[in-house]
Amino acid sequence: MDYDPLKLFGLHLVELRKRLGWSQERLSFESGLARSYVGGIERGQRNLALTNICKLAETLGVSPSEMLNFSNLDALSNENYPAS
Amino acid sequence: MDYDPLKLFGLHLVELRKRLGWSQERLSFESGLARSYVGGIERGQRNLALTNICKLAETLGVSPSEMLNFSNLDALSNENYPAS
Repeated sequence: MDYDPLKLFGLHLVELRKRLGWSQERLSFESGLARSYVGGIERGQRNLALTNICKLAETLGVSPSEMLNFSNLDALSNENYPAS
Repeated sequence: MDYDPLKLFGLHLVELRKRLGWSQERLSFESGLARSYVGGIERGQRNLALTNICKLAETLGVSPSEMLNFSNLDALSNENYPAS
């Protein structure tokens, strides 16, 4: 893989969270995931598992599929990501 | 969550694999994931992490987002899954 899924997931999670106007604390509270863990995911430092991806999706009100929809991230972060 | 992400992921993986006419052995060989691990994922018994989801996506030639696109699974397996 010539892109970093953790980094892209983190960037996309920040985008989805901010769309709702939520802080990391709010996302932590709503999802039940520890605030430090949410911070680590957003920094691209956590290789989170499928159930947590789906828990975040449900919390943010998006489909699990949208959680991995990296195609809309800005080019800078996405230079190697294949066009979907 | 009122649906089982591991089960749906497994069912969808079988679908994607069979679309290519691949055996579990072939998917194991192409992805580099152990054959037993692939079998466990398909049976809904593995809570696999983001990097392995993206590795499977790349191997199967689909986007990471498609790996979590459970909306097309047949109703039987999908009775609780929210319409996306």
